[in-house]
Amino acid sequence: MDAPRDETRRRSDGEQTHAAILEAAMRLASIEGLSSLTIGRLAREIGVSRSGVFAHFRSKQRLQQETIAAAREVFEREVVTPGLDAPEGLAQLEGFCEAYLSYVEREVFPGGCFFAQLLAEFDAPDGEIHDEVVTFQQGGAALLEGLIATAQQHGELDPNVEPGQLAFELYAALELANYFSTLHRDPGIVDRGRKAVRAAIANAGVRDAAGSS
Amino acid sequence: MDAPRDETRRRSDGEQTHAAILEAAMRLASIEGLSSLTIGRLAREIGVSRSGVFAHFRSKQRLQQETIAAAREVFEREVVTPGLDAPEGLAQLEGFCEAYLSYVEREVFPGGCFFAQLLAEFDAPDGEIHDEVVTFQQGGAALLEGLIATAQQHGELDPNVEPGQLAFELYAALELANYFSTLHRDPGIVDRGRKAVRAAIANAGVRDAAGSS
Repeated sequence: MDAPRDETRRRSDGEQTHAAILEAAMRLASIEGLSSLTIGRLAREIGVSRSGVFAHFRSKQRLQQETIAAAREVFEREVVTPGLDAPEGLAQLEGFCEAYLSYVEREVFPGGCFFAQLLAEFDAPDGEIHDEVVTFQQGGAALLEGLIATAQQHGELDPNVEPGQLAFELYAALELANYFSTLHRDPGIVDRGRKAVRAAIANAGVRDAAGSS
Repeated sequence: MDAPRDETRRRSDGEQTHAAILEAAMRLASIEGLSSLTIGRLAREIGVSRSGVFAHFRSKQRLQQETIAAAREVFEREVVTPGLDAPEGLAQLEGFCEAYLSYVEREVFPGGCFFAQLLAEFDAPDGEIHDEVVTFQQGGAALLEGLIATAQQHGELDPNVEPGQLAFELYAALELANYFSTLHRDPGIVDRGRKAVRAAIANAGVRDAAGSS
């Protein structure tokens, strides 16, 4: 292989450094919160100069925005893509819930789910980050509702169940499994989430024709 | 009425001021997080001098500890006491869940449940506040488990249900009702929590003798 031209290599090195800084930023934000993520704090964490990190992001706001964008990519790769890799219908709903629980169990982020952290941190209604968190949360809820509605269309869930209500119950089990597993450093707690998901889905199962379940 | 002696009045004024500062501290911490609660930030919020607040607490740590203690009293008064004011058994379990949901709905803390905020903020295992949050969370879970076990002893819930699992499901519904209601500024979301609580409890109901539910 020919050696890359200098300019290309420099750009590539710069991109790699940029990506490595964002990796550290996501880890740190998942543990300490995004509000604590400043250029100075991050520089200390990864052992480079403040100006070295500053050159990449220029402001705390841009660092935070890029960190959120990078975490979205991780969430897509670790939860959404594998979660939806199942036949349409109930299997996909179950697959998505399991992909989330596995992402918690594998501690993809050392401080637990990046977005669950943001949910509690930016619940107060001010600023761009709050708006992004609301959008992300609504996206997650809408995804669950859509999967539920599809499973209903496939005759795999009771058509009388309100998708928004079941989505709330599943979301609640997933979130608490995340919080408790991080709080207690006990991935075993994730199994409680699994059982809760199974119970909520079974409860919304198709009743037999006599209606006596 | 006789005027109180000067010294008594002074002490009483000081206590009132102290209590008023703690009220503001709880409100602020529920919105912005306890980590952001510094003497300077609090002084700006309530429009007094930094030294005025400092005289009451002497350190950020003590301010935070006293704020947590004050919030515990609010939680006792607004959730635990009314929640347990029902006949022992299922009524008490339902009463406790409803007391929590009502506390969220009434926005007792403007940023949502003070302790749910702490749960996400201090999930990383370091420091005294983390340990307090773990203790508080375990206390809440143990309370729910105890209420479930008592309802089982009264024959009001299926004895085969694991109290820890049902407690997890109820806790999940309560927490998410709190987070969503704060995030979306929509107390209506609390009704989803109510329905989830009812569903989880109904699901753990006593089966009829034939076991065919």
